[in-house]
Amino acid sequence: MSNPSLLILPGDGIGPEVMTEVRKVIDWYGTKRDMAFDVSEDLVGGSAYDAHGTPLTDATMAKAQEVDAVLLGAVGGPKYDALDFSVKPERGLLRLRKEMDLFANLRPAQCFDALADFSSLKRDVVAGLDIVIVRELTSGIYFGEPRGIIEDGNERVGINTQRYTESEIDRVARNAFELAMRRNRKLCSMEKANVMESGVLWREVVTEVGKDYPEVELSHMYADAGAMQLCRWPKQFDVIVTDNLFGDLLSDAAAMLTGSLGMLPSASLGAPMANGRPKALYEPVHGSAPDIAGQGKANPIACILSFAMALRYSFDAGDEATRLEQAVEKVLADGLRTADLLGEEGAQPVSTAEMGDAIVAAL
Amino acid sequence: MSNPSLLILPGDGIGPEVMTEVRKVIDWYGTKRDMAFDVSEDLVGGSAYDAHGTPLTDATMAKAQEVDAVLLGAVGGPKYDALDFSVKPERGLLRLRKEMDLFANLRPAQCFDALADFSSLKRDVVAGLDIVIVRELTSGIYFGEPRGIIEDGNERVGINTQRYTESEIDRVARNAFELAMRRNRKLCSMEKANVMESGVLWREVVTEVGKDYPEVELSHMYADAGAMQLCRWPKQFDVIVTDNLFGDLLSDAAAMLTGSLGMLPSASLGAPMANGRPKALYEPVHGSAPDIAGQGKANPIACILSFAMALRYSFDAGDEATRLEQAVEKVLADGLRTADLLGEEGAQPVSTAEMGDAIVAAL
Ligand SMILES: CC(C)[C@H](C(=O)O)[C@@H](O)C(=O)O
Ligand SMILES: CC(C)[C@H](C(=O)O)[C@@H](O)C(=O)O
Repeated sequence: MSNPSLLILPGDGIGPEVMTEVRKVIDWYGTKRDMAFDVSEDLVGGSAYDAHGTPLTDATMAKAQEVDAVLLGAVGGPKYDALDFSVKPERGLLRLRKEMDLFANLRPAQCFDALADFSSLKRDVVAGLDIVIVRELTSGIYFGEPRGIIEDGNERVGINTQRYTESEIDRVARNAFELAMRRNRKLCSMEKANVMESGVLWREVVTEVGKDYPEVELSHMYADAGAMQLCRWPKQFDVIVTDNLFGDLLSDAAAMLTGSLGMLPSASLGAPMANGRPKALYEPVHGSAPDIAGQGKANPIACILSFAMALRYSFDAGDEATRLEQAVEKVLADGLRTADLLGEEGAQPVSTAEMGDAIVAAL
Repeated sequence: MSNPSLLILPGDGIGPEVMTEVRKVIDWYGTKRDMAFDVSEDLVGGSAYDAHGTPLTDATMAKAQEVDAVLLGAVGGPKYDALDFSVKPERGLLRLRKEMDLFANLRPAQCFDALADFSSLKRDVVAGLDIVIVRELTSGIYFGEPRGIIEDGNERVGINTQRYTESEIDRVARNAFELAMRRNRKLCSMEKANVMESGVLWREVVTEVGKDYPEVELSHMYADAGAMQLCRWPKQFDVIVTDNLFGDLLSDAAAMLTGSLGMLPSASLGAPMANGRPKALYEPVHGSAPDIAGQGKANPIACILSFAMALRYSFDAGDEATRLEQAVEKVLADGLRTADLLGEEGAQPVSTAEMGDAIVAAL
């Protein structure tokens, strides 16, 4: 049998340097655990635009469709701000999500104990926090038509369309219920059903799907109240399911609240492929951080933990994922800190590469 | 000359009880400061639906168009959850906003010193916080057409449309720049220009308007990063301008972060009327809190401070507004606390009515 295949797309900003550390981890699994991957690497985002005039070539897109999992660093940066909308770095990432049909974006917001003091929230509000936001990722206002900037009379009008079908809501809701079943069996669905008809349909379908999961305690919250409650007492949640745009804001807020932003991975999953594995893309929650790119300051942990998620969700290697997560915990417990995590006493400052090496050593 | 006119719409949940306290304040201004108002009262939201089968009658709408200012309590509640979308309590409020064309919603997120410990954020992150979010209130996905739930093939589809014209963006941006000029001359505009064309147009128009305000330092942030930064270090902001939907989530999160949710007023302003006053509606940021309604537990301060905003923005009585704000600060400094603010030592628990009385006494 051939090795499982991985496509690595480092992207822009700190993407390449954090990915270098992930490759050390991947190599370790190949040599030490007899889990070799066929790894290929390619461009996405601004770096793809620089090379090819497009943030994602058709060839890279085709490769992404064929591999067992894609691992992405980050895209975007001020260098590309003036680019036309259609070739912005983000379009590369959005095309991957859409064409691979990665409808369920799992974003854990977890507070690492060693880092609880980095949160702007009080320790007791965040310590031990462990929730997951399931964000719909292939529809909604990100992709709905009509869209664009049109002329209307003597002025321009910017238009985007939120559009959700029952089946789109159904599949992401099922995914979230399944996840809740494996966790604490509490699911909160967020929309603006008091203002948006798409939210009314969302609430209806989620409620309907809930009948298949009677053990899961389902609640509904308006997204603005959800934003409030995440800031007030995030531990009231277990799993949250929400649409693409609300999920973008809410998951970023939740991630920041944990104080562990440079630590948080994400998985974007689609339907099972012929080999039974889901289509999948893994990426850190943080962005491309152009301000610190190339300086050895970036924290590679979020990207390394994204690979751990790949082990768990794509390669059925939950034990190996746990091993990797424990290695990360060990180096943190040892006091190793990249620049984003400095501040406490007793912390030992390390570069991106030193952090990667230490995690490999801890494995 | 006749007295200025005020239309009071208590609404649902705790709306009526907090409004009772505001009326005491209004009466005080009439008898003690010779500032009598012609006050009328009417129904909105669920209570209007209960009486008339609609969350806002045409007669009430007409009255709102004629008065100098509208003061609203809150709308909504689980009792009305099953109602058809078109007659939900929220539709009453949204109709007022839309037909009065109240395009600029000013939402201060201010941390009251006496209450800084109520925040889930660390004291140093929020103490002294004083920012304003200017939210566009009459357009965007709240009102764009087409909208609704349609049949498409063999399933239903929920649709809403985000739609912003240049002039809609221009006028709210101007409003925000003017406000920034009167404050610390920093304005941050938030959208998702990396994903939505309406955000591209938004950024372009705000930048253009900015040329008329060279003294204001203008920045742009993606709304997800904005949500993060509000949670991380809100004091980096002075004035934020954003669209209707982002403004809904971001202003609620910001309000919650201050720890002063029961304290925060808002003003929704439109174009000047014939008498020079802007069309205006004032309301607390908090909702109808049906769980505590009718128990004398509600905090009337947000609604009372909304009247203070009315004094300032509609009645050109900035000094009187300040007087009222100082009265509120005095009772807080004296240790008076409604149920939502209990917890510290030395606090003196008071009911909704006792809080109102104390504020009137402090005046
Ligand atoms: C980079 C951008 C297109 C993306 C999004 O808006 O989805 C990012 O913010 C995210 O959350 O993954
Ligand atoms: C009650 C509801 C319609 C309203 C909104 O979504 O605008 C509220 O959340 C607000 O922020 O004023």
